[in-house]
Amino acid sequence: MEKRILRLGMAGGGEGAFIGAIHRNAAGLDGDWRLVAGAFSGDEARNRRSGEALHIDPARTYANIDALLTGENALPADERIDALAIVTPNHLHAPMAIAALDAGFHVFCEKPMAMSVVEAEAIAAAAARSGRHFGLAFTYSGYPLVEEARARVERGDFGKIRLVQVEYSQGWLAQAIDTEGNKQAEWRTDPAKAGLGGCLGDIGTHAYHLAELVSGLRVTEVCADLSIHVAGRRLDDDINVLLRLEGGARGVLKASQVAAGDENGLKIRVHGEHGGLEWSQMEPNSLTLRWLDRPAETVRAAGPGLAPSTLARLRTPSGHPEGYIEAFANLYRAFATRIRGGDEWFPSVEDGLRTMAFVEGVIANDRSGEKWTALG
Amino acid sequence: MEKRILRLGMAGGGEGAFIGAIHRNAAGLDGDWRLVAGAFSGDEARNRRSGEALHIDPARTYANIDALLTGENALPADERIDALAIVTPNHLHAPMAIAALDAGFHVFCEKPMAMSVVEAEAIAAAAARSGRHFGLAFTYSGYPLVEEARARVERGDFGKIRLVQVEYSQGWLAQAIDTEGNKQAEWRTDPAKAGLGGCLGDIGTHAYHLAELVSGLRVTEVCADLSIHVAGRRLDDDINVLLRLEGGARGVLKASQVAAGDENGLKIRVHGEHGGLEWSQMEPNSLTLRWLDRPAETVRAAGPGLAPSTLARLRTPSGHPEGYIEAFANLYRAFATRIRGGDEWFPSVEDGLRTMAFVEGVIANDRSGEKWTALG
Amino acid sequence: MEKRILRLGMAGGGEGAFIGAIHRNAAGLDGDWRLVAGAFSGDEARNRRSGEALHIDPARTYANIDALLTGENALPADERIDALAIVTPNHLHAPMAIAALDAGFHVFCEKPMAMSVVEAEAIAAAAARSGRHFGLAFTYSGYPLVEEARARVERGDFGKIRLVQVEYSQGWLAQAIDTEGNKQAEWRTDPAKAGLGGCLGDIGTHAYHLAELVSGLRVTEVCADLSIHVAGRRLDDDINVLLRLEGGARGVLKASQVAAGDENGLKIRVHGEHGGLEWSQMEPNSLTLRWLDRPAETVRAAGPGLAPSTLARLRTPSGHPEGYIEAFANLYRAFATRIRGGDEWFPSVEDGLRTMAFVEGVIANDRSGEKWTALG
Amino acid sequence: MEKRILRLGMAGGGEGAFIGAIHRNAAGLDGDWRLVAGAFSGDEARNRRSGEALHIDPARTYANIDALLTGENALPADERIDALAIVTPNHLHAPMAIAALDAGFHVFCEKPMAMSVVEAEAIAAAAARSGRHFGLAFTYSGYPLVEEARARVERGDFGKIRLVQVEYSQGWLAQAIDTEGNKQAEWRTDPAKAGLGGCLGDIGTHAYHLAELVSGLRVTEVCADLSIHVAGRRLDDDINVLLRLEGGARGVLKASQVAAGDENGLKIRVHGEHGGLEWSQMEPNSLTLRWLDRPAETVRAAGPGLAPSTLARLRTPSGHPEGYIEAFANLYRAFATRIRGGDEWFPSVEDGLRTMAFVEGVIANDRSGEKWTALG
Repeated sequence: MEKRILRLGMAGGGEGAFIGAIHRNAAGLDGDWRLVAGAFSGDEARNRRSGEALHIDPARTYANIDALLTGENALPADERIDALAIVTPNHLHAPMAIAALDAGFHVFCEKPMAMSVVEAEAIAAAAARSGRHFGLAFTYSGYPLVEEARARVERGDFGKIRLVQVEYSQGWLAQAIDTEGNKQAEWRTDPAKAGLGGCLGDIGTHAYHLAELVSGLRVTEVCADLSIHVAGRRLDDDINVLLRLEGGARGVLKASQVAAGDENGLKIRVHGEHGGLEWSQMEPNSLTLRWLDRPAETVRAAGPGLAPSTLARLRTPSGHPEGYIEAFANLYRAFATRIRGGDEWFPSVEDGLRTMAFVEGVIANDRSGEKWTALG
Repeated sequence: MEKRILRLGMAGGGEGAFIGAIHRNAAGLDGDWRLVAGAFSGDEARNRRSGEALHIDPARTYANIDALLTGENALPADERIDALAIVTPNHLHAPMAIAALDAGFHVFCEKPMAMSVVEAEAIAAAAARSGRHFGLAFTYSGYPLVEEARARVERGDFGKIRLVQVEYSQGWLAQAIDTEGNKQAEWRTDPAKAGLGGCLGDIGTHAYHLAELVSGLRVTEVCADLSIHVAGRRLDDDINVLLRLEGGARGVLKASQVAAGDENGLKIRVHGEHGGLEWSQMEPNSLTLRWLDRPAETVRAAGPGLAPSTLARLRTPSGHPEGYIEAFANLYRAFATRIRGGDEWFPSVEDGLRTMAFVEGVIANDRSGEKWTALG
Repeated sequence: MEKRILRLGMAGGGEGAFIGAIHRNAAGLDGDWRLVAGAFSGDEARNRRSGEALHIDPARTYANIDALLTGENALPADERIDALAIVTPNHLHAPMAIAALDAGFHVFCEKPMAMSVVEAEAIAAAAARSGRHFGLAFTYSGYPLVEEARARVERGDFGKIRLVQVEYSQGWLAQAIDTEGNKQAEWRTDPAKAGLGGCLGDIGTHAYHLAELVSGLRVTEVCADLSIHVAGRRLDDDINVLLRLEGGARGVLKASQVAAGDENGLKIRVHGEHGGLEWSQMEPNSLTLRWLDRPAETVRAAGPGLAPSTLARLRTPSGHPEGYIEAFANLYRAFATRIRGGDEWFPSVEDGLRTMAFVEGVIANDRSGEKWTALG
Repeated sequence: MEKRILRLGMAGGGEGAFIGAIHRNAAGLDGDWRLVAGAFSGDEARNRRSGEALHIDPARTYANIDALLTGENALPADERIDALAIVTPNHLHAPMAIAALDAGFHVFCEKPMAMSVVEAEAIAAAAARSGRHFGLAFTYSGYPLVEEARARVERGDFGKIRLVQVEYSQGWLAQAIDTEGNKQAEWRTDPAKAGLGGCLGDIGTHAYHLAELVSGLRVTEVCADLSIHVAGRRLDDDINVLLRLEGGARGVLKASQVAAGDENGLKIRVHGEHGGLEWSQMEPNSLTLRWLDRPAETVRAAGPGLAPSTLARLRTPSGHPEGYIEAFANLYRAFATRIRGGDEWFPSVEDGLRTMAFVEGVIANDRSGEKWTALG
């Protein structure tokens, strides 16, 4: 496996953006990546200032994605970027990803993958024809103890899985800040930029991905209730979804952006015949296991008894907390490993397609009035 | 207000029963009640041994409810029982309660109130015509911080309520113990003794009562998914219900008796425009408040800032935990207060009718295939 | 073993007192005891009102302890009290206990046992010559999971014990409420009523008793720093004590009544060669075990894996929290069992003598300036 | 303030080392630093492999510190390292730091600063004469909520500080792994490499630094009990220290490396007249505030109400946990800011001198038998 520092470009993520900075932290953490180019903003001055602050060669701070792709391809192969990180609002994911893949670059893209299943399929086709890797920022799947949870379910510790409960509770949209100048809120509540779902697309997709990842089960049917709690808002800000999963398991997925006072409460619980697990993103270094016949256990990051795949995601000894950026960095590291020819899992095209099908299925169910809607 | 020790009789609750002993602990805690009579078991020897163990006059250890009611009414008014506690399986609640009320005794009854709305209405009619009090053991409503939560919602601390989430998670029926000699499990999974709902009737009713009590909102529509996870079982052992409440609030009610490893996890969360609350029965002496604009607060039993109605339910200074029996005792104390002519809230006929309507509504929704079913 | 309801008298605990009411709750919980007599207050009107509120026969509401002892002994043996609960300030413990024991009554006494080792020895002598039982309200030793902790240490789960850490943190004396009319604070900070130690005697003794009870090790030497943080106060309100225990174990005991904001934070941690345990009184239904070679376990009240001696102290199924009153009731139940001729542990003369020796040792160390003081 | 990517060299931290990798993660996180040179190991092959794995130019992977300093100074000013990170065992800190400072490089050094106060003073002198910056890896001081705690104490939220309690509990040395091939354990328990203190120097210094930093008070006197619990070990593995601080505050410092089952339990509690705070490193994104007169508050990283100096240390929105590496990165970022001519606090010479005086004071107290030893 080739080992060299990989070169990263970035689309979006200029001054004031949130997630772009996180991508850069995550990519920088392990020394696998170096940010060397970007089209950070459509605003020329802002784009230039962003590039300068990031110590980017001015010649590689491009006015837009097309200039970036053209410019980079004009550079020698050992200088041009290996991959492009796309950290824009949702409506730009598909056009940018397809262009970048077709231009020969690997793509690491923010979620949700696209505005629709059709768009997601177009990205999938571009990835297939280009032979390039497509990574998707389902960040929470990068946590070590999420992997531990998944591995333990898979190896049968809990027996047949019966119950899957996932929730993602935020409160930052409890007031009408989307109409008061908050950029993050604005585009996330604008159907033209966010897509069909509001809360559903923004965080419901994370919850859904986590539920299937950890349980190892596909959701087969959904029964949803979407609602809008802030006057004038055009996209759902709270969702409750009943789940039926393969093998008879049942579950609930809840997500809210109007749970006033909540921060970023992503939690999952899975129960099988013999016991269950619980993991909470806000205290990510503990995984609680409960059992029918013995005391509950708290599995700790870097503590005894972890799966090898979990250990591979840890950087510090037990009791030295790792967090969100480290989880994100695990995805960037796995993405780098794959580009270098190795084999490590990261969320990719299939995960993106599943979640887009979930979004469309939930919307369809909510609009139709039928009780259960099968997922494609 | 007259103040004397009240005399209690008990139907059911003999040797080996669980909830009868708790009723006795609760009634004994504050010195308001003295157990003086009972029909503890249909098995003669067991009935006699139970009476002896409880230091009951053998003449007042009756063979059955009819003997008890007749026998007590034959005693002078200042000796006979004031009230009867009914702690039998569900199918006996209605006939016993009606007989006791009609015989002139107050009744404190285990939940669910009855097997059906029709039976519950018959109890309500008996209470009305007899002028006697009917108390219902929705024990969790007796916790001091449940009252605090209710009072804070009512006075508008959180603004208009938008989200109501309640769950009740147990694991003790994760295996087929109902067919292996566990008495508690046997009758609770037997439609002839438990009624239409299994998990739904046994603990779903608690969750429902708590949700309406704390939020101050009525559930208007339900969309339910009931399931059975243990082969051969005849009643639901896991339920997931979407809720629509008055004023546009949305919610989820989950209850399970097959969440292997879970103990007695009753939790409620309510969010309004400005913040939200969270309370968990397993750590009942804390109430968490979260806010849009300031740090979360942990309101503690007997700590600063409590409503008078909360303080009235506390016996110990802060940091001295009170628990389930104390919550139960609060209901017995309130029931005593009412009998003595005072005025204190306890769960009663109306609460019982609401929960029976919920049970029937959920069953109807689950069987019909329609998405939403209005509650009567 | 004889089984009948035992008759209890009470010295102190009139209107407004805190701990007297708790004793009555605890004694009433299991139906083992019935309060039938008392000398509740030196104030005549208050004494009378207290007796009435408790439904005591006015003839058995006595003006003082002497009247009580004489009056009860004048009653037929099957009417007179079996035991006297002493719930007065500390300076009255010894004279009252000795008088009651010598009058032929069992005594259940608040802690600390007495004002000095000398007084405690006098009580011990009275108990010995009377053949009556003397129980001491080290309430925290009545918690089920304290027993579980003790049993696990004793059976060697953790190997040889190395570290013992105990703390008891309260904040209610952070301000000068002892000079502002708070009765509880007044006598506890008055050397004439409380004794040599303030915080030391009031809660340091609880911590010390718990440390020795759970670890199974005697403290051999202490090195103490006592301090007073509120101007004008005459007794220590904060103590820090280094401990050396049998077998080379080391420890720290901290207690404070000026930890502003703290409630009743009694915690113990014990570590041996292979692992350790942690228990906190404010969440008493969990006991955490940590291990060198496997994940931490949370042992739960009424959960799987408990010692028989723990199970005997539980009244409710797992997940139904028990608290302070139930712990207290366990002591009253054990005391009743012993009176009835059975055999069950409760804190008694030896525990009281140890703790008084601790109080005097700590005071001596603090005053002398020597580093280590051996406990007698 | 000049803004360019700074160049970092590293002494120690080769293959298999723990803390070197963390330094690299921390330095890489924000894009302020680029690792360009190193003397990673005295073992030639290991040194070479380490350099390769880190993508270091082979010409700048030096055989030892002298070669590094000479080699770097031979490079043009705009290529040579700005600073050297020293991540070796303790006995090399002083000679390396002095050499590097005298060679004109800034130094970022692992703790404890040196083997003795004398050595620490020599480093201080070298820093003074060279005009170069010296940073010290008291990592825990880099946590955002440690800064919040410090700021709130400083601005008087709690009134006059009375109590300071700090503990640092690990269990990894509970067995004799130091004689069984564990490199980390070997040097830490070897007086020739670790210095006078074992647990005292390794983690006691962290606890001490945190106590003084947060409380804003100097420790004036110590009374210590050091012990060794594993046979054959030559340095303390458990320490208990009574503290007297400026202004009459009292405290306890506990540290252990034989608390079997504990991970990295660094906790601090500080109480003043009106309330207190509690922070725990293993859940670093919450800071608990308790008050005499109102409910406890949980201040959250990136939540409402934070000091500007806290906000400056945060990278993610609330609910996205940051951890140990981020805390470390805050120190590297502040160190970079200072080198660039800005002004930001990081632990430095004075902090190192204080902690070395603490180590020597504790050792002196433990050996002398006197009760209290004043700190220099």
